[in-house]
Amino acid sequence: MENQIKLGKNCIIGENFKCGENVVIGNNCIIEDNVVLGDNVYIDNNCIIRNDVSVGGDSAIGANCIIGEYQMDFYRDHLYHKHELFIGKNAIIRSGCILYGGSRIGEHFQAGHNVTVRENALIGDHVSAGTLTDIQGHCRIGNYVRMHSSVHVGTSSVIDDCCWIYPYVVFTNDPTPPSDTERGVHVHAFAVVATSSVVLPGIEIQSDSLIGAGTVVNRNVDKYQLVVGNPGKVKGDIRQIKNRETGEPYYPWRYHFDRNMPWKDYGFDNWFSTLDNEMKAMLLGADIKQNT
Amino acid sequence: MENQIKLGKNCIIGENFKCGENVVIGNNCIIEDNVVLGDNVYIDNNCIIRNDVSVGGDSAIGANCIIGEYQMDFYRDHLYHKHELFIGKNAIIRSGCILYGGSRIGEHFQAGHNVTVRENALIGDHVSAGTLTDIQGHCRIGNYVRMHSSVHVGTSSVIDDCCWIYPYVVFTNDPTPPSDTERGVHVHAFAVVATSSVVLPGIEIQSDSLIGAGTVVNRNVDKYQLVVGNPGKVKGDIRQIKNRETGEPYYPWRYHFDRNMPWKDYGFDNWFSTLDNEMKAMLLGADIKQNT
Amino acid sequence: MENQIKLGKNCIIGENFKCGENVVIGNNCIIEDNVVLGDNVYIDNNCIIRNDVSVGGDSAIGANCIIGEYQMDFYRDHLYHKHELFIGKNAIIRSGCILYGGSRIGEHFQAGHNVTVRENALIGDHVSAGTLTDIQGHCRIGNYVRMHSSVHVGTSSVIDDCCWIYPYVVFTNDPTPPSDTERGVHVHAFAVVATSSVVLPGIEIQSDSLIGAGTVVNRNVDKYQLVVGNPGKVKGDIRQIKNRETGEPYYPWRYHFDRNMPWKDYGFDNWFSTLDNEMKAMLLGADIKQNT
Repeated sequence: MENQIKLGKNCIIGENFKCGENVVIGNNCIIEDNVVLGDNVYIDNNCIIRNDVSVGGDSAIGANCIIGEYQMDFYRDHLYHKHELFIGKNAIIRSGCILYGGSRIGEHFQAGHNVTVRENALIGDHVSAGTLTDIQGHCRIGNYVRMHSSVHVGTSSVIDDCCWIYPYVVFTNDPTPPSDTERGVHVHAFAVVATSSVVLPGIEIQSDSLIGAGTVVNRNVDKYQLVVGNPGKVKGDIRQIKNRETGEPYYPWRYHFDRNMPWKDYGFDNWFSTLDNEMKAMLLGADIKQNT
Repeated sequence: MENQIKLGKNCIIGENFKCGENVVIGNNCIIEDNVVLGDNVYIDNNCIIRNDVSVGGDSAIGANCIIGEYQMDFYRDHLYHKHELFIGKNAIIRSGCILYGGSRIGEHFQAGHNVTVRENALIGDHVSAGTLTDIQGHCRIGNYVRMHSSVHVGTSSVIDDCCWIYPYVVFTNDPTPPSDTERGVHVHAFAVVATSSVVLPGIEIQSDSLIGAGTVVNRNVDKYQLVVGNPGKVKGDIRQIKNRETGEPYYPWRYHFDRNMPWKDYGFDNWFSTLDNEMKAMLLGADIKQNT
Repeated sequence: MENQIKLGKNCIIGENFKCGENVVIGNNCIIEDNVVLGDNVYIDNNCIIRNDVSVGGDSAIGANCIIGEYQMDFYRDHLYHKHELFIGKNAIIRSGCILYGGSRIGEHFQAGHNVTVRENALIGDHVSAGTLTDIQGHCRIGNYVRMHSSVHVGTSSVIDDCCWIYPYVVFTNDPTPPSDTERGVHVHAFAVVATSSVVLPGIEIQSDSLIGAGTVVNRNVDKYQLVVGNPGKVKGDIRQIKNRETGEPYYPWRYHFDRNMPWKDYGFDNWFSTLDNEMKAMLLGADIKQNT
């Protein structure tokens, strides 16, 4: 095994370690038991990879990360209780991130610095989470979801594919704080929630809607709605929004933006037409013939 | 001494180290001088415990923490100046926290990840501070105060017992920014400040009040008031708020919620009746016969 | 060389390391190649100083920092690509900070904990960035700019000298999110942006203005304007604002506050009169004869 990896100084490797070819592990790393690393995985200095973590090939983990962090049950007896963490291929997890055991993260995950992801987070492919984003776990995040810096995803949140969430947005979950009732937010595909907005517990935000910066969303938001303000009010239909510089309509954005999106080089409609009906319905609901 | 502790690799232990039975210290830890650890303390990998830190028994400190961090005076001469830090029993301090020397933290403290607590913070028992919470020091926080993720507590803040503070709430302190005048916020017992609210300098929030999400609180808030909006306006009395699902009144919450609260299994009134008059007055002011 | 530095245990020093006199490097530090440290530099435990970093004399870097962090190009091939980082003299960079290669930071820089500064940030002298502040890079920050905790500076932002930015303020940059268009915010000298305000893309905030807490700034702000609310509205002229306690006018603050400012002990007008015309114009625009 040692001949497959380039290992830094002062590392500690636990039992039952498995790794692919061309793996690099930096200095002062601690790899606990039952860790599996795919081919070409790069782990930077001072990382702690706890028990039962599996990292897909071609992934990079920045310095000072803790991968497979303990859940609350550890603190009851100071003993590890088994919670596997799976991270898919091609992840880039920047320095200082803390990802708990007990979650499942898809391929092409990108995390900024000091991101936390707690247990029971089910995260799709091509998701990014910016610096200081705090995913509280017990949540479901689809594919191609982009969370910018300092997003707070409360437990029970559901975020569907291709949503964009901007800095300091909070998805809350307690309708009568403090309580033991939990009502997560559900944000549907292609919705955009701009900077510093707060979404109140149990709110449903339909696909293709746009929540303006600084909005407090206290009612459900319909498809295509533009909601702005505190409290949030419907200010129009996104299809009426014009780019101030060009004078052209811009939304739904999926017809005007494709960087890192699955329809890149195909166009949205061409890509969409290749999906099966279940996927189409998930993305755009009943309204699957939707266009601009 | 060495026979009392289970010590990881590459640790550095300073002078005058005292510890109880059954202590565990992980790998790569740096324990500076005059550190005292109670029985059953668990310190995870890569921690730095600076000089004059005392940690109560049955506490756990996650990986990569810095406990007893230097104050500003260190940077004048790159020399340590004495500032003791006391942390009570049964603390759970998760990975990445930075707690300064010169503060005093009660028992059963719980911190999420990357929490900072600066100097001259006086923190009671059973307090929790969520991930990324930033307690600027020179403040007083009572017992059973719950701060969620990313709360910012400015210097000179006073938070009384059993308050709940939600993500991205900020307690400010400068009435004419920038200035050398400092007027802290005072939040009284059982008050709830919901997500992303800002409390302006010198504001007093009385007990049992509720500040809605996204509120800018620019006037004092009376007992039982519900304040919402930007700027915050009195929208009613919390006793009129009904749980949307049950139709039942919910506030004051202390009659409907007791998880981890001191009245658990007793009921609020039974517990309250056991307190002495000074404590009663502190919690509920003149209005000590208060009920729903 | 080794006789010039006091080196902790388990350190790894790369090639071509240059340092001045009286340098201290803590335990477990990793110094990569081509690092230059001035006289009296203090580097605390567990720091990673990556390639091509230059730190000016009399600077201190707290524990667990990553200085010269990799840019995105590293993750393409897991190889370092050259990006120099210059940090001026007398910096205080507190524990947990992550500063990217490819930026230039002036003298007397102060950073709180867990601050991130990404690439292509051009930062002047005497700048401070509070705990958890997130500077996204590709931006220009003048001299004597004070950012409190948790400020988010989007790419393309320009912040002129002596601005004050308070917690959870966000400078956004995308007028039609998501898009590839980027329109940075420009905040002119002496402006104050209070807690939790959001400045929308491309907005210009003129000198000596004051943005109240919780404001969503969606229009340009003129000199001396007080803007408050969501959406932000002009509420008056800062020269009419009276200190509530003294009844005296307080703004422009530069006539009433000088802690750590360049006019300390001189008075603003005396200091201003010593500047050349270009600098005067930069600070106060056409209006260079400005007084209270």
